[in-house]
Parts: sequence; C-alpha cells; structure tokens
Amino acid sequence: MNSTSLATGQRSLGAPSIEFPLFPPLTRGCPKTSTDEIAYPLEVVYDYARVDRRLFDQEPGTDIARWSPLLPPLHVPTLGEGGTPLVEFDGIYLKDESRNPTWSHKDRLNRVTVSAAVAAGAPGVVVASSGNHGASAAAYAARAGLRAIVLTSAGSPPAVQAFARAYGARVVSVPVEARWPLLREVVDRLGYHPVSNQTVTHTGHPFGPEGYKTIAYEMFLQLGRVPAAVFAPTGYAELLYGVWKGFTELRLLGLADATPRMFSCETAAGGPHARAIATGAPAAVVELGHSDAYGIAGPVGGHRGVLAVRDSGGEAVLVTDDEMRQAQRDLARQGMWQELSGAAGLAGYRRLRRDFDGPVVCIATSSGFKDMGVGTETFPLLENPTLEDLI
Amino acid sequence: MNSTSLATGQRSLGAPSIEFPLFPPLTRGCPKTSTDEIAYPLEVVYDYARVDRRLFDQEPGTDIARWSPLLPPLHVPTLGEGGTPLVEFDGIYLKDESRNPTWSHKDRLNRVTVSAAVAAGAPGVVVASSGNHGASAAAYAARAGLRAIVLTSAGSPPAVQAFARAYGARVVSVPVEARWPLLREVVDRLGYHPVSNQTVTHTGHPFGPEGYKTIAYEMFLQLGRVPAAVFAPTGYAELLYGVWKGFTELRLLGLADATPRMFSCETAAGGPHARAIATGAPAAVVELGHSDAYGIAGPVGGHRGVLAVRDSGGEAVLVTDDEMRQAQRDLARQGMWQELSGAAGLAGYRRLRRDFDGPVVCIATSSGFKDMGVGTETFPLLENPTLEDLI
Repeated sequence: MNSTSLATGQRSLGAPSIEFPLFPPLTRGCPKTSTDEIAYPLEVVYDYARVDRRLFDQEPGTDIARWSPLLPPLHVPTLGEGGTPLVEFDGIYLKDESRNPTWSHKDRLNRVTVSAAVAAGAPGVVVASSGNHGASAAAYAARAGLRAIVLTSAGSPPAVQAFARAYGARVVSVPVEARWPLLREVVDRLGYHPVSNQTVTHTGHPFGPEGYKTIAYEMFLQLGRVPAAVFAPTGYAELLYGVWKGFTELRLLGLADATPRMFSCETAAGGPHARAIATGAPAAVVELGHSDAYGIAGPVGGHRGVLAVRDSGGEAVLVTDDEMRQAQRDLARQGMWQELSGAAGLAGYRRLRRDFDGPVVCIATSSGFKDMGVGTETFPLLENPTLEDLI
Repeated sequence: MNSTSLATGQRSLGAPSIEFPLFPPLTRGCPKTSTDEIAYPLEVVYDYARVDRRLFDQEPGTDIARWSPLLPPLHVPTLGEGGTPLVEFDGIYLKDESRNPTWSHKDRLNRVTVSAAVAAGAPGVVVASSGNHGASAAAYAARAGLRAIVLTSAGSPPAVQAFARAYGARVVSVPVEARWPLLREVVDRLGYHPVSNQTVTHTGHPFGPEGYKTIAYEMFLQLGRVPAAVFAPTGYAELLYGVWKGFTELRLLGLADATPRMFSCETAAGGPHARAIATGAPAAVVELGHSDAYGIAGPVGGHRGVLAVRDSGGEAVLVTDDEMRQAQRDLARQGMWQELSGAAGLAGYRRLRRDFDGPVVCIATSSGFKDMGVGTETFPLLENPTLEDLI
C-alpha cells in the first residue's frame, strides 16, 4: 500500500481554527499566533473521511510509505525506516528505534522533512544538530540527491561527527550561539530547506512529527490494542507529540476506542516541558545544567510537548543521568544497548512507579554506539592469559 | 507462527550419509570424516515432509521464531532479529543487516546458537571474536540469563570492545595464538558452550548457519521470487552457506523453481575459499596480509563456503580494501553507512561486472560505527563561522 497523501493543509497549534495551505511548510512557526516569547508550531491536516481503514490491515513492516494516506507527500526513496520491533522487557515493552537506517527514530522524521525539501525544489537541507538528527537528515538528503549542511557543536562525540560526515554532508562545528543565526542565513541566502528549529520556543518543521505517527500505528498493530501508557525520551517533544497524534487518529478513525497516557521523559538538568506544565505556560525555555544525555538535553521546549502530556492525561517526568545510566545498563544486560538519552523512557517509567491498566511501552530511541565516551577507552592485551583471568 | 522445530538430527558435510542425533551439537566438526588437515562441519536435518507451506504466507518481519519449523529449537527470547529491509540501490538490492538488534547479521546466528547453549544446560557461552560475533553472542547470552566470555585480540576498535562489554560479557584481549587454546579450556573445564570455531579448518557451531537461512526466506518474500545472484561478505562463509541452504529449501519445498548463484566476497589479503575453489580442495588455510576489513579477514576457511559457491554455480571474488572503501563510500552517499567489511558484497558485484537474468542482492552486514578508526578523529571548532565556511 503506497497511495496518495490525503494531507490538505497546515493548522496552527496556537489556534486550531487558523489554517494554511500545505505548501510551503511554515518552518518558522505560526505567523498569526506566535509572539516574541512563544512560537506556536503547525501541524498537518488530513481529509480523514477519505482514509480507507484497510490501511490498518497491513503488517507494521519497514518503509513508512505504507502509511502514505496519513503522511505528507513522500519524495525521497525509502531507506527502509520503521517496522521496528516491540521487545518484551521486565513486564513492559521497549520499542527499539535503534533499528532504523541510521539507528535512531529520527529517520522517520527525516524521510518526511527531506521530502518537503524535494517538493520545495531546494538545493539542500540544513540542520543544527549535534547528534542523530543531523546524521539522519544527511542520510536522507544523500538518498534524495540533495546537499546537506549540518551545524554541530563541539560537545558531540567524534564518532557521531564522523557519522554525519560519512553521508557526504558538510559538517561544521560552530559555537552554540552561532548555530541558529547561521542556519537562518543558509535558509535565506542559499535557499536550503531547514529541517530543524528556527524559533524562540521550539516549532521545528511542521511535517516532522507526522513521521513519528507511524510509531503509534505500529504499536497498535503489534499489541493488537493501544497501550495504556507511552514513555518517550523527550528533547523538543516532536517524538512525543507525533506518537500522540498517531493514537488520536486511530481513535478518530474508529479503529481504537482509547488513547494512551503520554509521558515526557526529560533530563533533570533541564526539562522545559516539565516547567511549562508546572507553570501553566504554553512552552518554556529553561537554564540547562550538565547532562551526558546530549540527545535530549536542551533549554528550549515547545508547545507540542505540553499538548501531548496535557491532552493525554500524562505527565512530564524528570530523570537524572544516574537514573538513565541505570536504565541503560539494565537494558544492555537484557541485550539492548541504548544511547544514554535512549534509555530515558525506561528511566521515566521507573521513576514514576505507577501501575497501569494495560500494556506500557517505553520508546528506546538510539544505539549505544552514539554515546559520549564510547571508543575512548582502550583495553590492555593480556600477555599470558589463564583460565582464572576469564572468570 | 511460532511452532515446533522439525529438526531431526545433524548430518556430516564430509559424507551426507553420516547422521548424528540433534543433540549434543557437534561443535568440533564431524568426528568421522574430519582429518588432521580438513575438518568437516555438520548441518541440521529436518523432516521437510511435515513443513506446512503456509509458513511462507506470512510477512518477512522481525523475530526469526516465525520460521521455527525450519530452525533448531529456540530457547532464548527474541531481541527482534531479522525482518531487515531490502533497499534499492543503483539497479540492485541491498539487504541491510545493520538493522538487527546488535546492528549486524550475527544476531540471526546467535539466537540459534545461544539457544543451543540453553538446551545444553551450559552456564555460559564462550566465543573468540574481535567484532560483531562476540558482541552479538554477549547480547543473546544476556537475554538468556547466561554468562559470556569473549576472547578478543588487540586489533579490534575500542568502540567495538566497549560494545561487547556493554552487555555484561567478560571481554579479554589476548594474543591471537592464545585464543583457540583458551576457548577449548573454557569449554572443557568450565562447561561453557562454544559459539565459535575450534577446528583446523572452520566448522563453527553446527546450528549457526540455520539462523542465516532466514535471510533467504525474507529475500524470497520481499522480491516475490528468488534472486539471480547473491553477493555476501565472506569470512568463514557461515552466512554464505546459510543463505544458500535457505534457497535450496525453498526449491525442495516446491515454493521456488530456481536457486541463485552465490558469490563469496572475500578480502584479497586472504581469501581461503577462493583458494580452496581454485585448487579443488575441500577447504583451505592461507597466509593473511593486512586488511582493515577485520570483520571478514581471516586465514581460515571452511568447507561450507566451497559447497555454496560450487553447488550454486557461483564464484569466489577477491576484493581489495580500496574496492571495499569505494563501495562503502558509494553506499553512504545513498544513505547507507556500512562497516568496511559490510560493503564487500557490493564491491564483489562491481568487480565481477556481470549481467544477471534477474534481481541481484548484495548483503550489507553491519553498521559503519564499528569500523576501524571511527571516533579517533576530532574536528576543530570554527570560532567565527561565515556562510562561506559552509559551502
């Protein structure tokens, strides 16, 4: 199944009555509702009445084009993203997103956003990212025959910088404060399509979370029902919101009669969504302390995360690096080696210590190979090893 | 579908009339046909008459337990191995095995071999490996609640050593010549189950290639037919033989009326199967020069690779590091970042320059994160970046 997109436009998350055409994607947030303090994202609207429910009779395999009616138009050939397994662990489930083409969940987003760049006729994509997002955008740009510029900061692991470079992207490490102005210049002067955020609170690409909806579709088919709760590692909350939106669509289409509670699992060193929810703000920017979970550690939150948590009856959970390390270690001791930030979902579930009336899914976002410090330790050769050395 | 194994015994590849019971797995090769110079492996025999062909009506998704009737008994819970995508590339297909639980094809083998360790009641598994095999065995041992000892050599990248350690294995770096004697001691004195080779020419675990058969089943369902040719990165040729065996089973079961030609793609620095085929030997051991493709560079070949190439009408192809690097680079420039040895299949296809009457599949075995040197290069921060620096 790979039929035509039923996307019809963009709607403001600042005021749902405000709609815009589907193109161009409004990559600087809603122009009508955003203020100097809060930028509101947009989301894609579909003609749900025309969705053939047999779409959900198919298997939850690779290539998200199988969900084309519920995605913006796809113009980049697949790298086989999606179709990730749901692995049982200790009475709950892990959705192992390290099993995507560039070994993180970001591939679902970038198949969609780089497709928008192709539709826009852009010569390339530009992204500010120190990790998975940049490499994934580079991979899909390469697949599409577009150039890619990745603005990274000095803090990312050398292996991860090599990763984005491998796909042929121009990767430049710049001071953190230079990233957003440069990105804007690349967009304005070179006509590159931006696939990361440009606004005061996070809005990102309006099409991005659509790719993440496919995680909800897969979970639904894999479990044979919607889960009771979903715990997601959360930085900007595009993942959290996308999964939430997917479940709301399943209910809207009459395929499910419930939706899960959504839990935003953020680093305790920051936690902008936890702050926004606690203060009743539509979004927040916080001071950021130190965290090795660089994949989710950022000061800037967005309105999407607040909506997903609030509308689903969930919570924002703050987890420390130590809690993530314990979760990471326990996952590895069951055969799943995650990046530190990738274990935030499990860490959040454990910190909350709550019983749910149904299956719990923690999203595990990325491979352990991308962690800080991996590969920096060398291990000595044992010259005259004996059996005792092995035990 | 996760029904009972129809495996009935082990058969010698030295003389097909010689059979043994299914247990214990003969991990030191065929005791009747092996000589001081050549060790013959065993393979698993099934009651094919009892195979319900509806087995192949299912989707080629994750968890190889879906093929249980045609596998030895599985006792380790799945990590979601298999179900990898077939990605179009330049008129051919790449089977992207970097999408397995530990990001290489080895997971298919280790689900099966570690299950044998559980069946044997062993307290742990032991493996001599500098790369993917050791980490994958460690992951499945962890999943099974068994201990794991990984004997590695100083040559493997630090990130890959960290990888196996993450799963809780005891990883010890020992001189190359100490690996096999130590492994034998761990087996004999500690009762650990060996999941790597112990013989003069390669025999390995008799159950191992059975896991790789599932790649053939998936390709068949993904293409809707058998391919005309399969190119596989080849070290010990367990992968090559397993995939070949899967295709012969599809023909035996009346599901396919042809089998592909199988191409062993070996490093030109060694190439024991190319040597054996050229000289008419059942297996060979060669001098090994230098290659960065450490995943497939070894002096020791086995009889399985000779059988797969010969019986399929294929060839052994030697590829240089430069040819693999070019293939690796070209794959990455289409969004697929492979380990150097993982690109050997594509390099072999290109070196052969032959037209085939049907689809060609190159197996791509592993993620680029595991390559030599990844993460050793640091990239300077650009203090005052301008647009010109980005182009």
